[in-house]
Amino acid sequence: MALILALDFGGTKLAAALVKSGCREWLRYESRLSPSNADANTDLEIMRSLIASLLQGTTPTAIGVSFGGPVDATTGTVRLSHHVSGWENLPLKNLLEREFGVHTSVDNDANIAALGEYRFGAGQGYDSLFYITISTGVGGGWILNGKPWQGAGGMAGEIGHMVVDPAGPVCLCGKRGCVERLASGPYMAQNAKNILQSQQESGNILRRLVENDLNLLTGQIISQAASQGDSIAQAVLQKSAWALGVGIGNAANLINPQRFILGGSVTKAGDTWWNILQKTARETALPEVSLEIIPAALGDDAPLWGAVALAEMQSN
Amino acid sequence: MALILALDFGGTKLAAALVKSGCREWLRYESRLSPSNADANTDLEIMRSLIASLLQGTTPTAIGVSFGGPVDATTGTVRLSHHVSGWENLPLKNLLEREFGVHTSVDNDANIAALGEYRFGAGQGYDSLFYITISTGVGGGWILNGKPWQGAGGMAGEIGHMVVDPAGPVCLCGKRGCVERLASGPYMAQNAKNILQSQQESGNILRRLVENDLNLLTGQIISQAASQGDSIAQAVLQKSAWALGVGIGNAANLINPQRFILGGSVTKAGDTWWNILQKTARETALPEVSLEIIPAALGDDAPLWGAVALAEMQSN
Repeated sequence: MALILALDFGGTKLAAALVKSGCREWLRYESRLSPSNADANTDLEIMRSLIASLLQGTTPTAIGVSFGGPVDATTGTVRLSHHVSGWENLPLKNLLEREFGVHTSVDNDANIAALGEYRFGAGQGYDSLFYITISTGVGGGWILNGKPWQGAGGMAGEIGHMVVDPAGPVCLCGKRGCVERLASGPYMAQNAKNILQSQQESGNILRRLVENDLNLLTGQIISQAASQGDSIAQAVLQKSAWALGVGIGNAANLINPQRFILGGSVTKAGDTWWNILQKTARETALPEVSLEIIPAALGDDAPLWGAVALAEMQSN
Repeated sequence: MALILALDFGGTKLAAALVKSGCREWLRYESRLSPSNADANTDLEIMRSLIASLLQGTTPTAIGVSFGGPVDATTGTVRLSHHVSGWENLPLKNLLEREFGVHTSVDNDANIAALGEYRFGAGQGYDSLFYITISTGVGGGWILNGKPWQGAGGMAGEIGHMVVDPAGPVCLCGKRGCVERLASGPYMAQNAKNILQSQQESGNILRRLVENDLNLLTGQIISQAASQGDSIAQAVLQKSAWALGVGIGNAANLINPQRFILGGSVTKAGDTWWNILQKTARETALPEVSLEIIPAALGDDAPLWGAVALAEMQSN
């Protein structure tokens, strides 16, 4: 019986799981938070201890790895991590293959999650789909003709840096009005903070929720305040849904996939966010372009299940 | 020796050519303008007479057809023509197969031109590319993994209706600031006309070129006036290049193809247009996303050569 080892190097969490190929339940599962001062070596050390605890002396048939940052999937080399230092050009696939002696496949978390949703989640039976995660950042992964599409240089899926409002605020990437700049959790928090600082009399619900410390604002708090009727929170949330809706509509016109699957914390922002998103995407796509946008099914384990799918795909 | 019959139903011109499979020169070529009051039947009658003159009693091995409008490539059924009436849901593939008794493949002109550039033109050896035509409209066709990508419903490639300026002018499709609304020839003419009507004292070069009849403005005249120093023409042309540049940069972030290939009359607008386009696309794509944008190589015969490529692909 083939035994798949799935690893998830997230920005803040490390997780590993063992599964029998073909099964849909973990044989064993381990996770640990990445310490705030972690570098690549500490993360690798923690992962080694999780793996030792999982394997208990057995040998897996194949290893699949989800990495939270840009990866050259062909060579399995990490380009960098935006959260943890020391990952620059680290040959993760080679390192794990030397250490464990089995075939290892590595890809970035958005591509992996797309594959996971396609094989085990909301994308089953849909040979063309775009998975988008909307959380601390906004990223995506394509499945086209039933296979991951990473692009010529492994950079496909960057819907987060599609410009949808050239008059919008400046993004970390240097451009104005990127989808991520308007739709991600931290940027929503920043947008709300900017408005609250310039409009001292308004946003009482938001201010109360963070006890007047605007540095405590998060995407989740904005959703909460919006549902309680805070008009600033509602405007910020509306802009997030609008930006992502334009991005999805544009992507539908360009590629016309069967499904868009949305995961990540911001997708839990509630019905209003979803309704504006669906409406804007429908208005942006041409009437002849079919459009189906649904929530992801795999939840927090999506990277691990995607890593299983990747390992199974590569070892078949 | 296999004999390919290539047909091009353009919006204003009908063309047909015969070529030996594997050859790069027409055996025979015929074309005729479509009369201004044409409907689908008159176009088909003209095409029949062109074909009769080409075939001179011989039988082709396969037929490839480029159609200037949306097509269901799976069934070879035309959805409609934006220029000529009577094409709604016309089963062009079936009709030609019944009439000539050989395998026939039909696709829309942008997909066909993408295939033609891939097989015979500026895209040879590039397994992922996006061909864009910028002329009366703005459309595109994908080659991914060496094959045409038409999308789940055959609607992929519609970069013309990507929103790049949500505060921009209203497009025929109902949205604001589509690429086509800013970049196409007729819309450039309309944009110049609007400015000239509101600024009676300026745009002297443009006014002189059309002898004060603003209805005679075309994309070509705007390019000409811009090169002669007309500031209104320059602004309109700059906006065209900017819109297309944002569209291409966004598409590069999403799909990361090896090459973008640009054809159509507006691409003859001169160096300034190309420079702004290249610069804007480079700024819009993430630094890690490679970007190569080059002019199409096949020129006016692109649809016919694409039809040859389609027929060869389908009959192999």
